[in-house]
Amino acid sequence: MNAPSPQLHPEIHSHPAPAALLQALAARFGSQYSAAQVVREQHGRDESAFSVPPPAAVVFAQSTQDVSDSVKLAAQYKVPVIPFGVGSSLEGHLLAVQGGISLDVSRMEQVLAINAEDLTVTVQAGVTRKQLNEAVKSTGLFFPVDPGADATLGGMAATRASGTNAVRYGTMRENVLALEVVTAQGEVIRTGTRAKKSSAGYDLTRLMVGSEGTLGVITEVTVKLYPLPEAVMAATCSFDSLADAVNATIQVIQMGVPIARCELLDANTIRMVNQHSHLSLREGAMLLMEFHGSPAGVQEQVETVQTIASDFGGQTFEWASTPEARTRLWTARHNAYFAGIQSRPGCKAITTDTCVPISKLADALLDSVTEAQASGLTYFLVGHVGDGNFHMGYLIDPDSAEERATAEQLNTQLVQRALKLGGTCTGEHGVGLHKMDFLVQEAGAGAIAMMRAIKQALDPDNLMNPGKIFK
Amino acid sequence: MNAPSPQLHPEIHSHPAPAALLQALAARFGSQYSAAQVVREQHGRDESAFSVPPPAAVVFAQSTQDVSDSVKLAAQYKVPVIPFGVGSSLEGHLLAVQGGISLDVSRMEQVLAINAEDLTVTVQAGVTRKQLNEAVKSTGLFFPVDPGADATLGGMAATRASGTNAVRYGTMRENVLALEVVTAQGEVIRTGTRAKKSSAGYDLTRLMVGSEGTLGVITEVTVKLYPLPEAVMAATCSFDSLADAVNATIQVIQMGVPIARCELLDANTIRMVNQHSHLSLREGAMLLMEFHGSPAGVQEQVETVQTIASDFGGQTFEWASTPEARTRLWTARHNAYFAGIQSRPGCKAITTDTCVPISKLADALLDSVTEAQASGLTYFLVGHVGDGNFHMGYLIDPDSAEERATAEQLNTQLVQRALKLGGTCTGEHGVGLHKMDFLVQEAGAGAIAMMRAIKQALDPDNLMNPGKIFK
Repeated sequence: MNAPSPQLHPEIHSHPAPAALLQALAARFGSQYSAAQVVREQHGRDESAFSVPPPAAVVFAQSTQDVSDSVKLAAQYKVPVIPFGVGSSLEGHLLAVQGGISLDVSRMEQVLAINAEDLTVTVQAGVTRKQLNEAVKSTGLFFPVDPGADATLGGMAATRASGTNAVRYGTMRENVLALEVVTAQGEVIRTGTRAKKSSAGYDLTRLMVGSEGTLGVITEVTVKLYPLPEAVMAATCSFDSLADAVNATIQVIQMGVPIARCELLDANTIRMVNQHSHLSLREGAMLLMEFHGSPAGVQEQVETVQTIASDFGGQTFEWASTPEARTRLWTARHNAYFAGIQSRPGCKAITTDTCVPISKLADALLDSVTEAQASGLTYFLVGHVGDGNFHMGYLIDPDSAEERATAEQLNTQLVQRALKLGGTCTGEHGVGLHKMDFLVQEAGAGAIAMMRAIKQALDPDNLMNPGKIFK
Repeated sequence: MNAPSPQLHPEIHSHPAPAALLQALAARFGSQYSAAQVVREQHGRDESAFSVPPPAAVVFAQSTQDVSDSVKLAAQYKVPVIPFGVGSSLEGHLLAVQGGISLDVSRMEQVLAINAEDLTVTVQAGVTRKQLNEAVKSTGLFFPVDPGADATLGGMAATRASGTNAVRYGTMRENVLALEVVTAQGEVIRTGTRAKKSSAGYDLTRLMVGSEGTLGVITEVTVKLYPLPEAVMAATCSFDSLADAVNATIQVIQMGVPIARCELLDANTIRMVNQHSHLSLREGAMLLMEFHGSPAGVQEQVETVQTIASDFGGQTFEWASTPEARTRLWTARHNAYFAGIQSRPGCKAITTDTCVPISKLADALLDSVTEAQASGLTYFLVGHVGDGNFHMGYLIDPDSAEERATAEQLNTQLVQRALKLGGTCTGEHGVGLHKMDFLVQEAGAGAIAMMRAIKQALDPDNLMNPGKIFK
């Protein structure tokens, strides 16, 4: 199998939108419509390292009806529609590689129904994870899925996002109960109910979760909530080597410890985080952990993990004992990406996202770090290692073709390694523009043909976020 | 909205298979092929109350290649293919309503890879849940999903099955990591990897899980395993009224107790179970519970649940303290269906399967029981009540059109009630032949159109278990 060649720029087939469409959108949406250059450019970039011409116009949807009308108008003129939340995609999901209009759902920020007695909440797609948790705060419940950015629930569902709590609470795959979706034909459908389980027909909810806007636009999301744990303890533990930290993690997971968060940063990244977040964490490979449960349950988990950590030469746990200290610690972790970016002014990050079976984590991670170090590129390393998922961020000068090629080569080697180990090219960021070749390798031609058949059946004119997932 | 009329018999469009196909299958499969009447009839019935002519022939597949060859041959003659595991479907999934051949995968019973260090196992589709647990016994791990029957993993995946442990460990939806599937074209594809999470393209795994054989034939299943809990305690608790037992359950779930099993039987069903399994459980509404965790964790759960139960007038817990006593208790629970059937010789059961948000459980359940009692039909009631899922089994004389109509009318009222309460018509048994009208009501025309578009795209000749899920 040949490695795909490093992809320096996405393939662009951008066509101008017909003036008649733009006029129709302007007439329908008034001040909710903009074709101003600055607004288009804001909606023409994300956190990826790609550079692509912006969309032809932006519609700021405030309701499902707005989304439906936008999709129907665009379909009439055979113009692509690209859903937009807060712009935090790392893989070019939001870029108008085939032209089209950006459909910004960030004003769809109503919390529609808090059903505390059923541990569910239904929100519009533009509600962010922090807004959601703020809204349910008084119920004693919380929503655990937490990608680094304060992303929208619609975007999180569309990319099958996860984050630091997934090791215990699962990803969007496990936590979305039901969706409202506007189809490529502009029809509004509901997938799923608020029942905890169901065998009623094809699982459209999970087909839409992770479909990256290519099968329809998500307009409402119903997710599970969890009781705030009675006891929460967070700690850091520093190790002499990366291998020790990784092997300690593997053992924690294999023992079945229900750890709530188990995050790895290497010494290099700790340095960036210390600088960015004004912390003074010990500059070694570090696990950041959190334990949820009853006081006794947390105590049991802590004892087990302390024993394992100490077997691998881990230092004493440093406790973040107050809620404020915990918040400071996790905010710093969530900002590690930005800490990395800011460590090299003007740089862009090319981010990796492999996830492997837990027993293969050391094999997948350690060689990749060695390769990154040998390359001379600046990089950061963070990992949801309890899930076997980690991210390298290669910090490149976006104008340097050489650095970009080096980063893509490192990424390719890293992905090939993960696939050989039975893993996936993307644990939580999605395919977007960046991993289309890797997806073919991972899934195989037959599974890709099935995905394409579904895409063709649901979006025959290829107008829903075209050019993503598949070439 | 009009209630669908009670469906007395499924619509049958059974066509004879061409002799040339049967000859080709006989030539290819030799002793793995049978057109004997007794074998066809064995494969022409399941645990549903429907009566339909048997399939034209049976192929006993021993490998994925056998499945692929069968599907390709049948496709050549445009003849339906119906996958068959152990025949434990309750909803007519296995019946040849449009003719065709039965593809029996029960001889595909190899355990292919036990990856204890990753808490995963891969098996052929014909391995049953008990065989699987026997195979992994020595690893200290177990597989929790447990429908009443000792079903095959393929069948469990195809119906998105669950069972008594789902309240803590989830259903097949949450526990299948990856599949091998033979498509309608006879191609072999893999969906998913052994990585714990992934955002790599459309979630074909979860599209196939619950597709009831209508999108392809599942040939291999990779599932999650769990460490055997350090401590396990099982208890029964009897209540003076059904309402008290249900309301105690609701509170246990709302408190977030991680109870492993929480099953309800009414007094009537306890009587049947006592007789069938030679037990002497108190004849009142009863919760059968199990607690998993560390010794201290289990103790905490038990104390919480005992307090709640006692608030609702529950009797003292009766402990099943030895592994043998626990096995006897859960075997009796799993056999409740058969206990019901045997309580009325010659009867068939028409089984309900609604699942509602937990806060609506009392509303959904109590009125349904009152209606059943008023009808004069014999019935049983069992419930995975921790999930909001319960089953009524109406025991009818299969030759009595009147009893059948009464049972279907009760089922219709029960489903309508559950849908109004935000629930689903089927929590774990699947749609099959029996709930097609209910599915349309539940999902709505738009979602059904999307399901049909997927079916049409993946199986354009409608040969994969046709006549199920959709009319």
